[in-house]
Amino acid sequence: MWARCALPALRRCGKSWHDGPRVKLAVVGLGLIGGSFARALRAAGQVSSIRGYDADERQRRLAVDLGVVDAAPGSTAEAVADADLVVLAVPVLRTAEAMAAVLPALKAGAVVTDVGSTKQSVLADVQAVCGALPPWFVAGHPIAGTEKSGVAASNAELFRNKRLILSPHAAQDAGALALVRGLWESVGARVVEMDASRHDAIFAATSHLPHVLAYAFVDMLSRLGDAEEIFANAGGGFRDFTRIASSSPRMWHDIVRANRESVAGLLEQQIAELSELLGLIRDEQWPALQARFERARNAREQHLAHIE
Amino acid sequence: MWARCALPALRRCGKSWHDGPRVKLAVVGLGLIGGSFARALRAAGQVSSIRGYDADERQRRLAVDLGVVDAAPGSTAEAVADADLVVLAVPVLRTAEAMAAVLPALKAGAVVTDVGSTKQSVLADVQAVCGALPPWFVAGHPIAGTEKSGVAASNAELFRNKRLILSPHAAQDAGALALVRGLWESVGARVVEMDASRHDAIFAATSHLPHVLAYAFVDMLSRLGDAEEIFANAGGGFRDFTRIASSSPRMWHDIVRANRESVAGLLEQQIAELSELLGLIRDEQWPALQARFERARNAREQHLAHIE
Repeated sequence: MWARCALPALRRCGKSWHDGPRVKLAVVGLGLIGGSFARALRAAGQVSSIRGYDADERQRRLAVDLGVVDAAPGSTAEAVADADLVVLAVPVLRTAEAMAAVLPALKAGAVVTDVGSTKQSVLADVQAVCGALPPWFVAGHPIAGTEKSGVAASNAELFRNKRLILSPHAAQDAGALALVRGLWESVGARVVEMDASRHDAIFAATSHLPHVLAYAFVDMLSRLGDAEEIFANAGGGFRDFTRIASSSPRMWHDIVRANRESVAGLLEQQIAELSELLGLIRDEQWPALQARFERARNAREQHLAHIE
Repeated sequence: MWARCALPALRRCGKSWHDGPRVKLAVVGLGLIGGSFARALRAAGQVSSIRGYDADERQRRLAVDLGVVDAAPGSTAEAVADADLVVLAVPVLRTAEAMAAVLPALKAGAVVTDVGSTKQSVLADVQAVCGALPPWFVAGHPIAGTEKSGVAASNAELFRNKRLILSPHAAQDAGALALVRGLWESVGARVVEMDASRHDAIFAATSHLPHVLAYAFVDMLSRLGDAEEIFANAGGGFRDFTRIASSSPRMWHDIVRANRESVAGLLEQQIAELSELLGLIRDEQWPALQARFERARNAREQHLAHIE
């Protein structure tokens, strides 16, 4: 029972936030996404104040110096104490720890949301900390980002025209959901609702697996004897194909770990597909190889309009 | 013996072309690369006339209509008859066929070069057609391109600040080499000489294998039951990772086939690497997984300055 969290019953205030005064925002995790959401909400005139916390003192100081937050106290509790909306923007495996730090300090009626790339693990962790899924917790995931990390890379336009997935749960309060939806829409995101398990299956395919593949490819090259000369001769195709291999290893470790079943299943399929292609090359089955390339090219071209 | 080609002995005219009057250019294969080189050489004031041939009549007509070539007659022989420099810009497996069509029409002293992504196969095919490697043939490969195909996508700036590999062979005429080098430099390319076998090993790693991996990844996704929804939720990382899967299947079939030993060897290594990563995920070896991601990220960052 989330009542165990020692919070008063949720005031159904979501709707009123949305129409009413600007929110007091707290961001836990001052990285690329947390910093960008803070900047974007301020630019959209949605916030009256922003406080933030990050375990890394340099990120806290930087966030203040860059004007991303108004204050960055030395504990989560101080950062969130007065907030109307708390955004958890930590690596997904830090969700439970962050929620445990937020919970005792949360004021009545506050809404908590997250920006994690996996949704089942986040909901499970929040449930574990709170005893049950709280109505005031809204699971979210912006489909935006760059390979860069840290609050210094944050920008207010990161979410414009990008998808934002919300995964409402069974105990979800409609007002809390509406508040979070409205804030994301105010910064230009296109909000889509999707069941958490569906979310995790889809993003294993479009995002988690490609990161594993890109890391594996660059890692292999780096261990070849002539790595220096190989990288020196890389062109634009290589740069784009490997861009995501510059992403935060810690963050992607967390994501793969949190969504390991889906990622492992797809990785196994991908290995099988590559083994088939290797067989086609070894057996000189050239028309069949070209047919695979054509099927892939056609699929990408057909769906290109959807790709942001 | 290339003398069997029934050409008069090569006049050592390469040097004089370079310093002397502008060249009469012929481009065989009016696609992205052939068209872009023609446009770039014209913009650099290096050519007095450009004739072109393509097996596809639409590309010939388009090349004339776009002003890429002055004329596009209906046969290779007519296109190259008066040329000082002939550029073969066909899919690599069409090299022998193109060379066989060029050879009888080539005037004395003309230089022939190519732009193929594999160099050993091109040299072998030219040797097979001519009986021996002709001093007037210069093997080249611009490290430039996009996922787009066809003369309509060509542009004069494609090669600026991009690498251009020349693979001189044992019988190479120095004047012919200097002519081709000078023309590429005149359009902004950074010319590097590299042995053909070295070239093929390196570009198997930086270019040929990533294309196979990107095609395989998109092909796998396209066959999942929920492909439509998967593609609809793709973000920027996906777009960049899969960009090269929109490349010409025919062209990449040719390249993989022409460089099959190197590509197959690396693909086998990549499958082994992915199988190791799958093992780490299945066995929940999380620190080891993160260490792989870190090694890859660090390698990419370290070499990023080299990547064009």
